[in-house]
Amino acid sequence: MSVYRSSRFSRLEPYVPGEQPRERKYIKLNTNESPYPPSPAVLQAVRRASETLNLYCDPTALRLRQAAAKVYGVEPESILPVNGSDEILNFAVMAFCDGRIPIACPEITYGFYPVLAALHGVRLRQVPLRAGFTVDHRDYLCQNCTVMIANPNAPTGLALTLPQIEEIVRSNGKNVVVIDEAYVDFGAESAVALTKKYDNLLVTRTFSKSHSLAGARLGFGIADPGLIADLAAIKDSTNPYNVNAMTQAAGIAALEDNGYYMENCRKVAATRAWASEELRALGFELTDSSSNFLFARHPAIPGEELYEKLRERGILVRHFSTPSIGDYDRITVGAPEEMRALIGAVREILA
Amino acid sequence: MSVYRSSRFSRLEPYVPGEQPRERKYIKLNTNESPYPPSPAVLQAVRRASETLNLYCDPTALRLRQAAAKVYGVEPESILPVNGSDEILNFAVMAFCDGRIPIACPEITYGFYPVLAALHGVRLRQVPLRAGFTVDHRDYLCQNCTVMIANPNAPTGLALTLPQIEEIVRSNGKNVVVIDEAYVDFGAESAVALTKKYDNLLVTRTFSKSHSLAGARLGFGIADPGLIADLAAIKDSTNPYNVNAMTQAAGIAALEDNGYYMENCRKVAATRAWASEELRALGFELTDSSSNFLFARHPAIPGEELYEKLRERGILVRHFSTPSIGDYDRITVGAPEEMRALIGAVREILA
Repeated sequence: MSVYRSSRFSRLEPYVPGEQPRERKYIKLNTNESPYPPSPAVLQAVRRASETLNLYCDPTALRLRQAAAKVYGVEPESILPVNGSDEILNFAVMAFCDGRIPIACPEITYGFYPVLAALHGVRLRQVPLRAGFTVDHRDYLCQNCTVMIANPNAPTGLALTLPQIEEIVRSNGKNVVVIDEAYVDFGAESAVALTKKYDNLLVTRTFSKSHSLAGARLGFGIADPGLIADLAAIKDSTNPYNVNAMTQAAGIAALEDNGYYMENCRKVAATRAWASEELRALGFELTDSSSNFLFARHPAIPGEELYEKLRERGILVRHFSTPSIGDYDRITVGAPEEMRALIGAVREILA
Repeated sequence: MSVYRSSRFSRLEPYVPGEQPRERKYIKLNTNESPYPPSPAVLQAVRRASETLNLYCDPTALRLRQAAAKVYGVEPESILPVNGSDEILNFAVMAFCDGRIPIACPEITYGFYPVLAALHGVRLRQVPLRAGFTVDHRDYLCQNCTVMIANPNAPTGLALTLPQIEEIVRSNGKNVVVIDEAYVDFGAESAVALTKKYDNLLVTRTFSKSHSLAGARLGFGIADPGLIADLAAIKDSTNPYNVNAMTQAAGIAALEDNGYYMENCRKVAATRAWASEELRALGFELTDSSSNFLFARHPAIPGEELYEKLRERGILVRHFSTPSIGDYDRITVGAPEEMRALIGAVREILA
């Protein structure tokens, strides 16, 4: 830190992404990537886009919005493409929170929300979870806050139902409700259709998990055109050409090939069911995950120790130091052979 | 705009990028793109990167920083890659300006600086230009502001000398000086080497102009490691994976092929000299541009009218409505054949 940095940021605690080690080839079950490659149409689209990189991309991403609108059943004016969904979360905090409007979110959730609150000097009301790490939707009614909920939640994988989400949105009519659907394609109910009924609902999506594009950085905000216009004004004031030409092309191709990705999500869900059963048979306790990761603890071994011992065996999972979940590890659901390797390693460690 | 947008942003005036029309094929001389395609090595690198897009990119962009460090003669710790140089300008305003520290910049310059000031509620001290649209470096000494200067300046193309830049940096030791070198490769002196001598200097670069990567979105901040750490903390608090895997790969390939791009810059400078001479022969007044655009007016035709008449003939240039430069048009230096078409069209219009 230099002497020049504005004192507002003296206590900034940036987000720490999951490790991306380069010193050794690991089985990576730590950052919730898809084990399946992008479809051939995506590779072709990227190659074509790369030939004219000397020209600017479309700052309005019109064709991408049209392709997304078709898949999500909304109008192109209801969609804002972003450079990964972290960007839309940042824009949402800028647009809809301030000194008078705090954020309400679960105490255990995606670690980026508190980072954004700290960055923008917005108060954070962290709502404790209920038994079994559940989010109780009744804790989020009539908040006078911008409500921010990951559904399914991370790192627990637990999801609210659509009627519960709708009750939250309806009861917070004076404020914006952000539903972060990063993991929704793996088994939870999407609230996208509710954006046509409620003008205070922002649904965020990422193509990093279900659509095999973590490296391309692509996310979407989906909401009433009025909310989208707010967010687009912030986008055009911070980085008008936020989504590059290759990623726009990759996104269009992925949306046109949506069936391939939904089939991959079904495969991940099947692998999740198999791996959960195996782990339970080994004595693990797991939450009932609707996402592409497992959240697991074993009574005989602390979460950090299991993380370390798996790492020694070439398998990366994610451990969070937060005390209330320190017993647990978050394990991405990888390909079947990766999960077999995980189960084998766990057996060895417990032996 | 919705009823939910924070009142802070009631007067937000987003940046308006140059038009990117799709209804007709134009000769595009309006957004300062390179007329030359990216090098074959870039296309190859992008293709390779696209095969593993299901994995996250390196959030620290280490290999890209190493490649840039080699070309710019600094350490990797002195470089922050960004999603286009607009992003580093945004981070700089966030990190180094606030209610007490305004921005000082030329009254006529890149239109994004006032947008950023408005977005972050930072005061803007707009310093009038001197005769012939020149920036007088003595107007920027001892400012108690974050000084922000595009060198060469836009849309005039006029550059300060390195000793003048150094005097500004030295005299503002208590504040950060941002030198925006978007166009420096086309003929001005770079201040990058000064970042090793002064810890308050931030040089920003873009690969959108000289390196044929406008569509890939790639920029750099170059500064003392302390300043870079400030900016990286902001980056990691807004969008940790800001530069996608394909763009990182493209940037590395372009840096390793830097000679190809510097040769293109020399070609653009030669075309600029030729086109300037032709336009002067037709009665135009031009500034002495060190960039990849011309800034020109003709006594017989207002800037807006010339813009319109060129547009009718399938040639796009940029006209700014700001009264003090309303007589002028900014004309990107394209390929020789594009500039011949421009001169031909101008001859027709003046006939």
